[in-house]
Amino acid sequence: MTKRIEVDGHTELYGLFAHPAKHSLSPLMHNHSFEKNGINAKYLAFDIGPDDTQAAIQAIKTLDLKGVNLSMPFKQKVIPYLDHITERAKLLQSVNVIKNEQGVLTGDSVDGAGFFESLEASGINPKHQTLTIFGAGGAGLSIIQAAIDHGAKEINVFKRHGKNFDTVKHQLELMNDGHAGDVNLIDYDDETTMIEKIKVSQIVINSTNLGMGDYQAQMPAPPGVLAALTNQVVCDVIYSPAKTKFLEFAKEQGCTIFNGLGMLVYQGALSFKWWTNTEMPVDEIKQLILER
Amino acid sequence: MTKRIEVDGHTELYGLFAHPAKHSLSPLMHNHSFEKNGINAKYLAFDIGPDDTQAAIQAIKTLDLKGVNLSMPFKQKVIPYLDHITERAKLLQSVNVIKNEQGVLTGDSVDGAGFFESLEASGINPKHQTLTIFGAGGAGLSIIQAAIDHGAKEINVFKRHGKNFDTVKHQLELMNDGHAGDVNLIDYDDETTMIEKIKVSQIVINSTNLGMGDYQAQMPAPPGVLAALTNQVVCDVIYSPAKTKFLEFAKEQGCTIFNGLGMLVYQGALSFKWWTNTEMPVDEIKQLILER
Repeated sequence: MTKRIEVDGHTELYGLFAHPAKHSLSPLMHNHSFEKNGINAKYLAFDIGPDDTQAAIQAIKTLDLKGVNLSMPFKQKVIPYLDHITERAKLLQSVNVIKNEQGVLTGDSVDGAGFFESLEASGINPKHQTLTIFGAGGAGLSIIQAAIDHGAKEINVFKRHGKNFDTVKHQLELMNDGHAGDVNLIDYDDETTMIEKIKVSQIVINSTNLGMGDYQAQMPAPPGVLAALTNQVVCDVIYSPAKTKFLEFAKEQGCTIFNGLGMLVYQGALSFKWWTNTEMPVDEIKQLILER
Repeated sequence: MTKRIEVDGHTELYGLFAHPAKHSLSPLMHNHSFEKNGINAKYLAFDIGPDDTQAAIQAIKTLDLKGVNLSMPFKQKVIPYLDHITERAKLLQSVNVIKNEQGVLTGDSVDGAGFFESLEASGINPKHQTLTIFGAGGAGLSIIQAAIDHGAKEINVFKRHGKNFDTVKHQLELMNDGHAGDVNLIDYDDETTMIEKIKVSQIVINSTNLGMGDYQAQMPAPPGVLAALTNQVVCDVIYSPAKTKFLEFAKEQGCTIFNGLGMLVYQGALSFKWWTNTEMPVDEIKQLILER
């Protein structure tokens, strides 16, 4: 039974800045957690105009919002207006959570950490492991960075050989600087290597949008390649649909599968913990989301 | 039984901009009314730095707050940053409520209208009546302007003969321009006239702070003057204490008395109606406030 707290003059405000924003699950997650933990605060979704980034950051200070999550396209755009960003946010050039301490704004990127917190809740740890990951966009890079942080032995990243292949290669080198493991950026079309890397991986991750929306019928690699899956841990950052074609295929191959719900909830839990120093009730939150 | 609405991505935000703000009763009033009326919105108190007026108005637009109430010192300071203000707000050079319609901000001043809405709920109307009012500060002027609007016959305003006496005199002339009744600005020290005006008034109002805080032991006029009260309607804009020394004295004289709670609630109700086109449950709200 959650305790009802009336909104009053002391109620503190948190929010999501996104565009669009209204269909986000974050308000549900955070408001339920505030109530559960007896915290007098509300979390609202703000649909911010893409040209209003600076004004939105100013609004955090003026209205004293205590914390904000960011979604596209603000993860990169806010960086010049923050007072500090964490080392990982700097490496990723991406911020998905801001904490306001007496008007001083610090940005962090906790998507990747959330991803592995979620796996660790099931006893899976990337330390000394070999990983294969499809895609190196925002979600992919945050997972790669967190895998490096966790001491993965080898991270194989498959990316289309487009115009920013070399940029990403350089970014991965910076991320891995000073770390013992290997990070390999490999052409998505190199299916021979892909099969080889899947075979030696303990964890295989899809971070592309292949499997959702217009791409719902697709998998991140052809069946002939994914036939290399046997008993790996296979993850998708997609949570809607709850089971992508990729996860279905992997399950049939005998793999342990995880969709993106855990990453979503645990990045929220990490934001929540940073803001309030209390724990999000993650199992309740997952249940709540599944009920919607 | 009020219906619980969960905060979600669609929840709209309203607020109070004040300094200080946290002890305001407005969040209680508006949030209770949102729930009662099944409106998915929250009303929070924002303590805004006095130098942040322009940034606070920008924040209304950037975060798409649907409506804002203003308290000191923002009632005057916001005016240059609004897109429109109503005629009465212009006359008073004061705005206590802003409505945001697709990013276009309009300011209004509803304190005085709230004052008379409250009296009308008890069947009292200032039309064709003679009024005496102590003080011509923000609250006093808003009541005077509303009394003019309601067609009062004669409004006698007592004000200390300080440096802005002539400014207020001019402001009252502008307010009364085109209206049939008389508005007289009279020196507070002229007790002979004060007694005479109280005797011919049907409504006598204290709009000064004499009776609250450091001035709790005081009345707006000496007992020898207030002895002129017999059976008038006597009002105080103060609501804490619930019964000022002035109201106690007036009640002993046989007057019908009203404290400032009605004005507070009805100005809120007018803001609420303007924003949501629904009615604030004023009797419930009064009861809630009395319970606190």
